[in-house]
Amino acid sequence: MKKRGILIVVSGFSGAGKGTLMRKLVAEYDEYALSISATTRNPREGEEEGSAYFFKTVEQFEKMIAQGELIEYANYVGNYYGTPRTYVEEQLEQGRDVILEIEMQGALKVKEQFPETLLLFVTPNSIQELEKRLVRRGTETAEIINSRMEQALREAAVIDRYDYLVINEDLDECVANVHQIIQSEHSRVSRSTEFIKQIKEELEENVKGA
Amino acid sequence: MKKRGILIVVSGFSGAGKGTLMRKLVAEYDEYALSISATTRNPREGEEEGSAYFFKTVEQFEKMIAQGELIEYANYVGNYYGTPRTYVEEQLEQGRDVILEIEMQGALKVKEQFPETLLLFVTPNSIQELEKRLVRRGTETAEIINSRMEQALREAAVIDRYDYLVINEDLDECVANVHQIIQSEHSRVSRSTEFIKQIKEELEENVKGA
Repeated sequence: MKKRGILIVVSGFSGAGKGTLMRKLVAEYDEYALSISATTRNPREGEEEGSAYFFKTVEQFEKMIAQGELIEYANYVGNYYGTPRTYVEEQLEQGRDVILEIEMQGALKVKEQFPETLLLFVTPNSIQELEKRLVRRGTETAEIINSRMEQALREAAVIDRYDYLVINEDLDECVANVHQIIQSEHSRVSRSTEFIKQIKEELEENVKGA
Repeated sequence: MKKRGILIVVSGFSGAGKGTLMRKLVAEYDEYALSISATTRNPREGEEEGSAYFFKTVEQFEKMIAQGELIEYANYVGNYYGTPRTYVEEQLEQGRDVILEIEMQGALKVKEQFPETLLLFVTPNSIQELEKRLVRRGTETAEIINSRMEQALREAAVIDRYDYLVINEDLDECVANVHQIIQSEHSRVSRSTEFIKQIKEELEENVKGA
């Protein structure tokens, strides 16, 4: 009996380090598949098709929307970003856990469609640390950093719709923690209905036969 | 900020091996405290006060009931068994996770009083295996084994009120799995309300101060 994989959505404050975290998790453990987004933005230098993104024209992307080929999508600063459905479904069917790294609004849309989705929220240990990381990037103006903080405040208001809060203080520990959370989730009663059904049937036969 | 410990109730089919499992868990990991029951049954040879049980007279036990000193109690075959409240509360307050090994009805009573209780249900891999283990004990008559199976059937009907299903196939793996489940549970959003509140306050100050 091959168990269906778990769909995991990872969100977090900008600067929480979720991208690095997810790449390390997928590199260390074979059992996870990282979903690749489709986008209409132009590839940056060195970005290969199907590695960071699937690059689409606006026409292609809107056709995908119309045909229900995306689990969720959003438009940022004039570019579309979305999660192709087929890859996710195939991987789950094969029993692999699929990880989507998407922002909060997309995450909640996915949860509506797939109520069994596991929602993880990544945060640094403190807001001071978050600000430090954004400043350290060196590419963000004070204005951008402020707007990131305002966005973080809006996001913080809905953290309680997530399942787990992952504190990213030490990267290796955090990777191990996320792995542990996902593995434990496989033991949830609500994810073991097939096994429980089987046990009940076996017990009924046993008691009837006694 | 010292986090409160988690109250964990472990139940399971008779013969699932939960006693051995819990003793090994507590021996391997310092962070758990195993709650010790009070009982009015007579000590068996070699059973020391405060090791397997606290031994009480019926009068003492009924006084504990009357004074609300037990989290739950039950009467089996003419003997009282119950969980003293003080020890559990003290350990949780100190941030230790406390494990109670009690049967299903007691487990659900504890959950009513402490809704944040984590409920684990231990089962072997199959009913055939369960029966094998009961037979192997050598102390159980066919009649007792049948009555255990009937009891298991009644218990199976309410497994879905538990949080996690723990399959005890290999003891070491199972101990590691239970440890992983409890540790992950500490990252639940619903158990991180203090941290989330703090993050929100820090963000509000940061945005206001910008």
